[in-house]
Amino acid sequence: MIEKVSLIGSGNLATQLGKALKRAGLKVVQVYSRTEKSAKELADILDCAFTTKLENLQESDLFVVAVKDSALPDVLKKLEAGQAVVVHTAGSVPMDIFANHAKRYGVFYPLQTFSKQREVDFSAIPVCLEASSPEVFDELAQLARKLSGTMRAVGSEDRKTLHLAAVFACNFVNHFYQLAAGLLESKELNFDLLKPLITETAQKVMTMKPADAQTGPAVRFDETIIKKHLNLLDEEPHLRKIYSFVSESIYNSKKNN
Amino acid sequence: MIEKVSLIGSGNLATQLGKALKRAGLKVVQVYSRTEKSAKELADILDCAFTTKLENLQESDLFVVAVKDSALPDVLKKLEAGQAVVVHTAGSVPMDIFANHAKRYGVFYPLQTFSKQREVDFSAIPVCLEASSPEVFDELAQLARKLSGTMRAVGSEDRKTLHLAAVFACNFVNHFYQLAAGLLESKELNFDLLKPLITETAQKVMTMKPADAQTGPAVRFDETIIKKHLNLLDEEPHLRKIYSFVSESIYNSKKNN
Repeated sequence: MIEKVSLIGSGNLATQLGKALKRAGLKVVQVYSRTEKSAKELADILDCAFTTKLENLQESDLFVVAVKDSALPDVLKKLEAGQAVVVHTAGSVPMDIFANHAKRYGVFYPLQTFSKQREVDFSAIPVCLEASSPEVFDELAQLARKLSGTMRAVGSEDRKTLHLAAVFACNFVNHFYQLAAGLLESKELNFDLLKPLITETAQKVMTMKPADAQTGPAVRFDETIIKKHLNLLDEEPHLRKIYSFVSESIYNSKKNN
Repeated sequence: MIEKVSLIGSGNLATQLGKALKRAGLKVVQVYSRTEKSAKELADILDCAFTTKLENLQESDLFVVAVKDSALPDVLKKLEAGQAVVVHTAGSVPMDIFANHAKRYGVFYPLQTFSKQREVDFSAIPVCLEASSPEVFDELAQLARKLSGTMRAVGSEDRKTLHLAAVFACNFVNHFYQLAAGLLESKELNFDLLKPLITETAQKVMTMKPADAQTGPAVRFDETIIKKHLNLLDEEPHLRKIYSFVSESIYNSKKNN
């Protein structure tokens, strides 16, 4: 059974996962980060040890590697997990990456957006699991159930697709919030005015298919408004290009529906 | 005081506004639509009269014109409002459009996304008002307060910007939900898996600035993942183009921040 966990990495995900593990009664043993500042920062939050050297990792039942994808190979070369389970948390990295580096391994992918300064309710997060053996899977599943109400077995290929879809549904969506905020700011209008709309737009797709929930000038083929909006963006060529491009994509989706 | 309201139009907004007016204790007198089918459909829901001829409009205190922007001029030519107040509900149409057609007029713009089959809580919707005189404004404001907790005086120029920002924060955002749903569907993955992420992404910007809430490969300059995602989209040139384009926009926003 997994009781003692160490975190390799100190970013947004490591921070929120560490807090959730503690809340669920697990023992967080140690935090590793390349820089002492960020290792210490998270260790202070989690009230645990920290290190900047992978050779100094303490004994744990589970090592969670939550670093940038490009930093993973380097970490794996130096990590000696022994009989402990080692997982990564990356959407787009296959489980195989561990094959030559560990005996018992897997993937622990919580499908959510994490920011350091924002607490998240882990119980609402789907945790996607993959493991090198049924035994390891069971251990990870037990852990996942302590954190979340939704645990799923997801293979490396499906996880890639989930991650890509998440980029569209979260990262790109948030960028459009940012573009909207910028438009309002330029006219000294308050972003608060958009908040009920943002909430309702998200809530609609909890019960409706996104295609059925679509509203606005592009889906109605309302060229009068589209032209007005493009004129309004005359001095913002970048936004103008995005506006045309996404409107066309909406228009084509509707046509093919 | 406005007590009797007639609706010119029977689309998503007219439907939900009509229901909200009734719930707030107003009397909905009549629905006009060009086609008998849709006029009757909404009149049945609202338990009121209907007509397909603007010459047959019954006496009301307020006529709400909620039609496609391109249909507005035609409606205005035929509408005889007399002493009644007449408003449109369009984000991007200036109030002036009424100048030669009515004595007492204004704009009643609820900043929300409406679908016929989905009930909305009007009390959470910001209603943006503009009026031809302080007296008309007061009458509209009184009405708006019966429906909503947030009522704002917004001029035609600012309303245009709000509408444009709403297209980014709602219509474009929903389209990205749809693209994400399509990606999952193509691999027989359940859209439900993304729902907690969609909810959290929207909730984050209730308290954080969108720029601070941004996560994902583009804002981290994580080229390894971006390349993988583009490869995954090799057979979807349209999605591939959107992916590059929006990632670049995120990247540039971060750089200029």
